Amino acid sequence: MNKNYIVADKWSIIEDVFDVENVKASESLFSIGNGAMGQRANFEEDYSGETLQGSYIGGIYYPDKTRVGWWKNGYPEYFAKVLNAPNWIGIHIEINKTNLDLNLCKVSNFRRELNMKEGWLSRSFNATLKTGEEIQVNTKRLISIELNEIGAIEYSVKAINFSGEITFSPYLDASIVNEDSNYDEYFWKILQVVDAENNGCIYAKTLKTEFHVVTAMEILLELNNKKINVLQETKIEDKSLTYTYKVNVLEGDTATIYKYGSYVSSLNYNNDELLDASLQNVKEASLIGFKKLLKLQKHSWAEIWNTSDIIIEGDVKAQQGIRFNIFQLNQTYMGTDARLNIGPKGFTGEKYGGSTYWDTEAYCIPFYMGTKSSDVAKNLLLYRYNQLDKAIENAEKLGFKNGAALYPMVTMNGEECHNEWEITFEEIHRNGAMIYGIYNYVNYTQDFEYIPKYGLEVIIAVARFWHQRANFSKAKNQYVILGVTGPNEYENNVNNNYYTNYLAKWCIEYAVDCLNKVRDSYSEDFERVIKQTNLTGEETLEWLKVAENMYFPFSEEHNVYLQQDNFLDKELIPASELPKSERPINQKWSWDRILRSCYIKQADVLQGMYLFESEFSKEELERHFDFYEPLTVHESSLSACVHSILAASIDRMPKAYEQYVRTSRLDLDDYNHEVDEGCHITSMAGTWMSIVQGFGGMRVCVDGNLSFNPQIPEQWKSYSFTIIYRNQILKIKVNQSETTFELEGTKDLQIKVNNKTITVVPNNMITV
Amino acid sequence: MNKNYIVADKWSIIEDVFDVENVKASESLFSIGNGAMGQRANFEEDYSGETLQGSYIGGIYYPDKTRVGWWKNGYPEYFAKVLNAPNWIGIHIEINKTNLDLNLCKVSNFRRELNMKEGWLSRSFNATLKTGEEIQVNTKRLISIELNEIGAIEYSVKAINFSGEITFSPYLDASIVNEDSNYDEYFWKILQVVDAENNGCIYAKTLKTEFHVVTAMEILLELNNKKINVLQETKIEDKSLTYTYKVNVLEGDTATIYKYGSYVSSLNYNNDELLDASLQNVKEASLIGFKKLLKLQKHSWAEIWNTSDIIIEGDVKAQQGIRFNIFQLNQTYMGTDARLNIGPKGFTGEKYGGSTYWDTEAYCIPFYMGTKSSDVAKNLLLYRYNQLDKAIENAEKLGFKNGAALYPMVTMNGEECHNEWEITFEEIHRNGAMIYGIYNYVNYTQDFEYIPKYGLEVIIAVARFWHQRANFSKAKNQYVILGVTGPNEYENNVNNNYYTNYLAKWCIEYAVDCLNKVRDSYSEDFERVIKQTNLTGEETLEWLKVAENMYFPFSEEHNVYLQQDNFLDKELIPASELPKSERPINQKWSWDRILRSCYIKQADVLQGMYLFESEFSKEELERHFDFYEPLTVHESSLSACVHSILAASIDRMPKAYEQYVRTSRLDLDDYNHEVDEGCHITSMAGTWMSIVQGFGGMRVCVDGNLSFNPQIPEQWKSYSFTIIYRNQILKIKVNQSETTFELEGTKDLQIKVNNKTITVVPNNMITV
Repeated sequence: MNKNYIVADKWSIIEDVFDVENVKASESLFSIGNGAMGQRANFEEDYSGETLQGSYIGGIYYPDKTRVGWWKNGYPEYFAKVLNAPNWIGIHIEINKTNLDLNLCKVSNFRRELNMKEGWLSRSFNATLKTGEEIQVNTKRLISIELNEIGAIEYSVKAINFSGEITFSPYLDASIVNEDSNYDEYFWKILQVVDAENNGCIYAKTLKTEFHVVTAMEILLELNNKKINVLQETKIEDKSLTYTYKVNVLEGDTATIYKYGSYVSSLNYNNDELLDASLQNVKEASLIGFKKLLKLQKHSWAEIWNTSDIIIEGDVKAQQGIRFNIFQLNQTYMGTDARLNIGPKGFTGEKYGGSTYWDTEAYCIPFYMGTKSSDVAKNLLLYRYNQLDKAIENAEKLGFKNGAALYPMVTMNGEECHNEWEITFEEIHRNGAMIYGIYNYVNYTQDFEYIPKYGLEVIIAVARFWHQRANFSKAKNQYVILGVTGPNEYENNVNNNYYTNYLAKWCIEYAVDCLNKVRDSYSEDFERVIKQTNLTGEETLEWLKVAENMYFPFSEEHNVYLQQDNFLDKELIPASELPKSERPINQKWSWDRILRSCYIKQADVLQGMYLFESEFSKEELERHFDFYEPLTVHESSLSACVHSILAASIDRMPKAYEQYVRTSRLDLDDYNHEVDEGCHITSMAGTWMSIVQGFGGMRVCVDGNLSFNPQIPEQWKSYSFTIIYRNQILKIKVNQSETTFELEGTKDLQIKVNNKTITVVPNNMITV
Repeated sequence: MNKNYIVADKWSIIEDVFDVENVKASESLFSIGNGAMGQRANFEEDYSGETLQGSYIGGIYYPDKTRVGWWKNGYPEYFAKVLNAPNWIGIHIEINKTNLDLNLCKVSNFRRELNMKEGWLSRSFNATLKTGEEIQVNTKRLISIELNEIGAIEYSVKAINFSGEITFSPYLDASIVNEDSNYDEYFWKILQVVDAENNGCIYAKTLKTEFHVVTAMEILLELNNKKINVLQETKIEDKSLTYTYKVNVLEGDTATIYKYGSYVSSLNYNNDELLDASLQNVKEASLIGFKKLLKLQKHSWAEIWNTSDIIIEGDVKAQQGIRFNIFQLNQTYMGTDARLNIGPKGFTGEKYGGSTYWDTEAYCIPFYMGTKSSDVAKNLLLYRYNQLDKAIENAEKLGFKNGAALYPMVTMNGEECHNEWEITFEEIHRNGAMIYGIYNYVNYTQDFEYIPKYGLEVIIAVARFWHQRANFSKAKNQYVILGVTGPNEYENNVNNNYYTNYLAKWCIEYAVDCLNKVRDSYSEDFERVIKQTNLTGEETLEWLKVAENMYFPFSEEHNVYLQQDNFLDKELIPASELPKSERPINQKWSWDRILRSCYIKQADVLQGMYLFESEFSKEELERHFDFYEPLTVHESSLSACVHSILAASIDRMPKAYEQYVRTSRLDLDDYNHEVDEGCHITSMAGTWMSIVQGFGGMRVCVDGNLSFNPQIPEQWKSYSFTIIYRNQILKIKVNQSETTFELEGTKDLQIKVNNKTITVVPNNMITV
């Protein structure tokens, strides 16, 4: 059963009943962040019920010692994970010396709202303590986009039925641990605790990685909206700093605490500047004040929405879903720092270590490319470019040579840190995604210069990998790729995974294509790269032998490419015939049973046909869709969006819509029963693609121009989306009867709509 | 490089130089045991160098929490391992208050001997302490076969160049841990420490499994061979009990301590009897005295050797090798207790958890059947029979039904406790070995009654498993078995492993065969079993459909059965062409590279042809041997023996001899660079088979009679072996020119030699 407690709303995520069963799920869903840092929606006050505390700083990770049953040669020794960082949001609250804990008192009028339009989180409720005092609480919290080392909290308590004492004890707590730590280790070392009047900080460093981080706070108090000065009691413990303020109130009074928090780290400062910078930050924030910060925040989000909003009319839940997806993507990654990337859970949980997967190249780049300046996608590419040396080292460890690179399945700093052999060593299709990301970027932005300057080195190293990884099969008289795991991780160690073989062939051909173009037009870069890589013409001819003679498993009977060799030895029973009690199979079946079944975790052959759609006829797409869709159980968050897009492109709108709903509300409705662990951030980019590429039918043509083939689900009145294309903003609105295009730009734009070329003129709406 | 420090000797394992580099290896090689308990050859006195302490009690295990990187449905939650038990051998020695520690003094005249003929371990050396005192030490130690809860030590120290004080501090130490513990847990809880005059004990229980164990000691001292009474100082610590005795000596005096030790456990006593029993044991041992215990031991071993010795003339190293193998097998398992089994490392190390593998059925049963009364092999079968319920439960967890059983890959108590998915879930050929063990036993002993009484239930449950595990492939129009790991663990998750498919088909056919025989001749048992298993004729017909239409991968080109589907897509490069620097590949190559290579860890297709040799023509065997042998790297201890036997049976004696040497001296010469972790006990049975079945060509005919086809390596003058067959003892000696047969029995015996039937008469030697 999916969850169904989030109130439908166009712009906000709202929860209007307090239920302890939903606390952890809501902590994930109501997470806030600004790309540089983020946090789960933990309560400020104490909470004794089930909770997963989480505050994270982008790029601050810990190499947790790997845990495996049996060691295999080549395993990475650690799994880098985003660290749970010191908590700055906490405020113990006492009413006449009784602690406020929603798990232990009567709660009414509870309402939590994540306002996505303006970028803040609020909570309000009435609480009646066991001792009888009733209070009304209103809180608001934000993590600033503009001042990206700062967060702020406004926390008001109104005395409803008593006069007495309200105690606020804001604190910084560095005794935090990661729930998913492999050996229950503590990852931080406290270097210094600094206390002063109304502000203070904790200076800590991470063990092993030696990141230095200062967490600071500044406090301000008001009574009935007037600033008050209250005696501060200070408690410094081993790993925490707590200030206590006692405020005397009369019945009806409202006491408010403002808490400003900041993280600064050695990623951006010298170690000796950190203390000052952090205290400066919170001081500045308190001077700006909460209301002004809110206003700044609203402004920042308005800018983001201007180029990324999707408006759906006639379906509030779909509207809420897509905005939630866009909002979370922006909270996770802003694209301004090439050292950062997009963890599968963003800042909403610990699972997957918060590191970088192939999700970035395959799913996230289109979203960021379509909604932000091209620098952002370029930063994502540079992230991999900067880690090329590590990818070459990684391949060397596995026995490859001559500068072949294997990019890691999971990474934080370029080193592989995944440790299931069937993934780490075998899920090598990720290497193709790196090149597809480059291709996709160059194609969309027409920034071909990226190739000679950066991309070519990566492209050569990956082509070398594929050339070495394939081997010639005498039996087949073709090249084969043995022992791989495709995108469908419900198959392990298979031979000739269609998707992998296709990408391998394509990567080599693209490499040769790029080499030719660079040789012809960027001779200086060409010479530099050739010298650096020792590449010869003979070597590229060897590559091409592999590409040109690549084997692809094919079934004459079904007239489809097979996911891998011997796929047809399986019993092909549609997933719809599985009893509900056995779904999801990854929670109900043993691994061997999953492996020998025909069920597909996520798009695999279809993933390839999605990426290279123009290479296939509509009939081919239909045939493969009809063969594979019934066998796909979509137990990966990355599956439904691809099926939705393909369904739309073969005019199966009901199926496209069904899969769209699944992807867009995956977390809000908790399809996979795991939202309490965090949200599926990277798949949210797939939701965006489902609308833009799926319903909107947006494609990039070979000439780099855009084409559209708009359709609309019968459930909707209209939808509209915005694309940044060649630094111009194009808005597309699709109604049941017509489609309009509007350009906020400086020059005309040629696009194709339903195969007809039209010109869009700045500030003029065109109806098709 | 193999090790080469063991002195060649026909009856003893001898080390005559003290080298700290060899201490751990020797601890394994000089291990002693009696089937019920055993220990590594740790020094009695303190040793500060590298050492792996190990004392083990058969059947006393601990469920250590499993350690895996990522959880998969169906994983076992713990890995049962034989526990390192409290140490009873330790004696701190001080010379004029300086501790004796071979790592810290000058050692000369060092000699260690494991006398396999008589079953004792001795050590002698001169040690000069840093303080100048020189002593001569002579020790002897045994673990009694006759009194199987008892061990004894004689430890003499002669004062060579001083008069002064020799201090003996014998102790019991229960603070021991397993080096391979997953979470560094301590597995014992101390219940009581009892001290008295010259004797004492520690009563402890294992956590979780609640085995109660008492470890006791009794001390006796002599000066110059005369009993002395010395004041005893007692020290009781948390987990240890130490007595200290100070002996004043004059230059030339010899002080001797006798230490008798005992383990008793709740496997054999009520908890409240344990303390008395243990103290009674050591008291009795001290009354018998060390010399008498030695004599008893010699007698026990003479009896064992009488029915199991193999004599090789003209090759001392080969002689030493085979006796070492036979000796260790007997130290590990005596066959008197159906609750015990044969761990891959016996009592010589911790690796593999000391539990039961398919090694028992595939390798050990022939040895025990051939050298001991048939009760012993029967006990090994009953071990599995008694665990049938657990095997059915195990299969249910994986989704099988209707009483199908999957025996565990590794177990202590019948529950699966292995946790690599590709083994746990997929290395299912083990299930066939269970049935082959029954078949082999019945065939050799002609005890067909075992089937109706016990075997049939196991046979039915396993047939059900194979029936359910296979599926019909429309593509092949035959039954296939997908997603398995064969005996060659350098392939994982393959389809249609020839060995597995062959065993599956055979198991079903054997099941139906047994059912028919039991129905015809044991109708009462038949009805009982049919009722209990709800088996119908229709169900067996369904089984047979699978057996009769089983698919076997075959290459027309090479005219051989293929190890698995698509094996010929690999590059087939003989292992001999691999650079030495890349061997063993499991230490040099990453796992993916191993998997997609053609290299075979251990006999796989050939293992099947070995088990069912009579089903294949000599030409078929030759073809398959010539195809697979060059690709086999023998990086499992269980491989060389099978290749040796097959080589002999196709008249390739040089190859047979080469593989024999490898298997027989695997540990003594440390081929796999890991003897410090313990010896490869189960593969030692394969060494015995290499001579008896390989060189001797012994086979069991369909009528249950034996046939021989004796050959002799050109390196040897002669060899002889002994077989217990139908409770008669048959001795075979093979010279270069002739073979003799001698029967110690009560009735004539018909055997076939080189295809001619001959009759052997009791107490008459027949020359062929």
